[in-house]
Order: sequence, then C-alpha cells, then structure tokens
Amino acid sequence: MTQICYFCSMDLQEFLEEGDKLFLPNLSIDLVIIGFEEGHLKCLLLKMGNKWLLPGGYIRRDQSVDEAARTILKDRTNLEDPHLQFLSVFGDSERRPGLGSEWKDFILNSGVKWDEGYWVNDRFVSLTYYALVDINKTHPTVHNFDEAYGWFHFDALPDIWMDHDQILKKARNRLKEDINRELITHNLLPDKFTMPELHKLHQAILEEKLDRSRFQKKMLASGLFERLPKLQKDTPGRNPYLYRLKKQGV
Amino acid sequence: MTQICYFCSMDLQEFLEEGDKLFLPNLSIDLVIIGFEEGHLKCLLLKMGNKWLLPGGYIRRDQSVDEAARTILKDRTNLEDPHLQFLSVFGDSERRPGLGSEWKDFILNSGVKWDEGYWVNDRFVSLTYYALVDINKTHPTVHNFDEAYGWFHFDALPDIWMDHDQILKKARNRLKEDINRELITHNLLPDKFTMPELHKLHQAILEEKLDRSRFQKKMLASGLFERLPKLQKDTPGRNPYLYRLKKQGV
Repeated sequence: MTQICYFCSMDLQEFLEEGDKLFLPNLSIDLVIIGFEEGHLKCLLLKMGNKWLLPGGYIRRDQSVDEAARTILKDRTNLEDPHLQFLSVFGDSERRPGLGSEWKDFILNSGVKWDEGYWVNDRFVSLTYYALVDINKTHPTVHNFDEAYGWFHFDALPDIWMDHDQILKKARNRLKEDINRELITHNLLPDKFTMPELHKLHQAILEEKLDRSRFQKKMLASGLFERLPKLQKDTPGRNPYLYRLKKQGV
Repeated sequence: MTQICYFCSMDLQEFLEEGDKLFLPNLSIDLVIIGFEEGHLKCLLLKMGNKWLLPGGYIRRDQSVDEAARTILKDRTNLEDPHLQFLSVFGDSERRPGLGSEWKDFILNSGVKWDEGYWVNDRFVSLTYYALVDINKTHPTVHNFDEAYGWFHFDALPDIWMDHDQILKKARNRLKEDINRELITHNLLPDKFTMPELHKLHQAILEEKLDRSRFQKKMLASGLFERLPKLQKDTPGRNPYLYRLKKQGV
C-alpha cells in the first residue's frame, strides 16, 4: 500500500527522502488551538501512539511563515480566519522528533523504510502560534500523521510528546497577559453571550475568582458591548440578557 | 589573501560552500541593539556597501536559538548579560539576502568566488531579538562582514538593507508596550540617574510629552527607587538627586 503524505500529497517515502526540496528544513510550525467549553479552557491535541501532540506542519519554500501557519490551521480545523497570533520560538539544540519512539513507530507502521538521516529526523526549531476558536464551529480532521484528536482541559492534559507541554504552558500564560489589554478572548465565546458566560471565561483564563457584580459593572462601563434581547431559557430562574461586541468603527 | 569567516573561523570560501554543515540553513538571527544618549533612543547598525544593517548571524547546530543570539550579542558588543529578549519572526518567502547587490559585492570584494547556489544566498527566516544596553559600556566590534558601525537615532535612520527597517520598527513599538508593564527600560540608563533623565527616557520611548511633576510623583510613589546623594554638577542651577533601582528581594 502506498501512503500519501498529508502535508504535500507526495508519496510518503518520497516525502521522507526529499521533502526538504519542497519545505524549509529544520523548521516546523506548531499550533496551540484553544477553545472554551463548559467553563473550561481546552486545547486541541492529536494522538500519535501513546502520546498526544500539537497540530503542526512544515513551511513550504514558496510560503511565508504566517501563510504556512494559516494553511496548517485551515487544514486541521477547517477554520478560515480566526485570531491566529505568533506565540514564540522553541529552539533547543536537542529538539529532534526522531529521538523518541513514537515517530519512528509511526513511520514503520506506515509501511515505509526508516532512516535516521531523513530530514524530518533532524533538529527542528519550532515556530509556535496560538489560535482562539469557537469549539462549536471547529471541525478538526485527522490525517495519516495522527490517529485521533481530542479537546483537553489545560489542567488535565494527557501524556504530551516532546516539549509540547512547554509550548502549551507558554500559550496558557500568554492568554493571561492578553486579557488585560485586548479583546481577543471573545473569539472563545459565540457571537452572542451572557455576562455570566463572559465572567466564567475571564475566571478560567486568569485562574482566579472575580467578584461577579464588580466584574459585570466594569464590563458594562467599558462601552464595548451591545445589549440584545434576553436569552430564552427552558430552565427555571431569571433569563439573563444577551450581549455582543459593538462593531468597531461603525 | 585568504579571508577567514568571522562567524566560524572557517576559510571564507569553505564557509560559503559548506557552512550549512555547521549552521542551520535558512535561519538567521538579527539583533536590534538599543541605547539611550543625549535624550534620544539609538540603535546600533553596521555598514555593508552603501546600506546599513542589523548585527546578526547564524545558529550553530549545537547551539540553542537563545544561545546563538547571546553569542552574537557578545561578539558584536562585548556585552555579557544585558537584557536580551525575543522580538519576532520575519518569515516572508522572498527574504533572500542574495537578491540585493550589497551582499554579492561584499563577497566578490573578499576575493572569493560567487555562486547563486551558496546556502547563504537562499531564503532566510529571521529570528529577531532586542537588547537594551548602556551605550557607554558597549564597545562594538567590526568584522569582515561589515565596514563600520554607528549609533543612529530611530527617527533619522540611514539607508537600511533588506527588511531590517521593519524589524527596527517592530522593536521601537515593542518598547512602548514594555514600558507600561516592566522596568527593563532602566538598562538604558546608567546605574545612577536623575529624575529628569528618567523623564526624558520615558518621553523618548513613548514619543509624547509627559507632565514632569506628575511623572516624578508617580515614579517616586512606585517605591521602586532609592534616593542617593545629590549629583555634583559644575554647571549653575539646582543639583538634582541621584536615584537607583532598589535591589529586588533584599
């Protein structure tokens, strides 16, 4: 059986032997894709053997680094244009995907030959990005480089491959910095949301309790939100107002 | 005459032909080295032909990306341990140092052969860092890759090579963000400084007028500074107090 490489539609054996003609060597992109569900921040991980890893890929020689990141996000989640931001560079000299057994097992299980000298087994500097997405609009796909996908709580992560746990930690901390100066975190909520939902999101990101009425007062005073009709619930209790972000520049 | 490559002590011809055995291909590091003098923010640039460029270099295969950046900073300024922070990645698909004439002229003037196919002429993704230094403690050195160095006002830059003007702009903007949340900008001043000097630094970074007495009140109220004896001036007028940063954790 001939395996076709997900990244480039090459035959997998050809990709392993000559993929660096098409892609920049020693450089990879890894994406931290973050959503918010049931009061928890979650990240999208892919399974390879008994480890989980971040969705990622390589940079085509004819693509900019940002374009490559967007392409990988689109291929992995079918999302076109969410918030996608550069996170950081992970550049330890010992970052070699080929060092662990998972990668080798995957290659061998694909029915192709194994060679330590493949370009994909060399040292890789990872350029990492993070995306904030609405989980309900996100439809991850599984390719031949991974067996399954899953959304995981940041505080209950499975066994993580290589240094991807450090990348996840960096993204988690970046969110805390972001929330104090930007509105980007609203990508994590649907277009219309209630103040209790916004309150839960801020608490989840900052990992601390926020006084609910003070939070709500501050948010409403910001003038950033537009009030809509109340949410119609089937459950008993007060129906909260729905809000959405005011359109910028209108 | 045999030219020795500054980066690796290889013979220059050998470096051009086989340097990618020692260094990662397609990846470079560029440094924005920033100082403060006579009320102005200045950056260190090197001359190559009729253009000026950022100090930079390559990543040895046995070095982490951060180590490579520190090595380049040390080699270029003789500074050991200043504030050195990752800035951003510049990854356009058309970033080819070999495209302009300056690089080619430099190579040809070095008395070695020219070949479009040298690894140094390929596409390069630049990982950029910025350092805040005390100009008086900084002793730049000029190597065989550059003819001269100079400190330039950010608002009076000479003719800049490739996309290095964009990298400079990014660093300039980052400083404005930094000043609101960190104390790193004090690296730009000597250990002991006056409040008027600190005021001028903040104005230079933010590119706006700050009310002097309100600024001074805010700084003193922060509790971050220790007052020292007055500055002894030879010129007439009041002698201002000197200050220094209180030691952390003491």
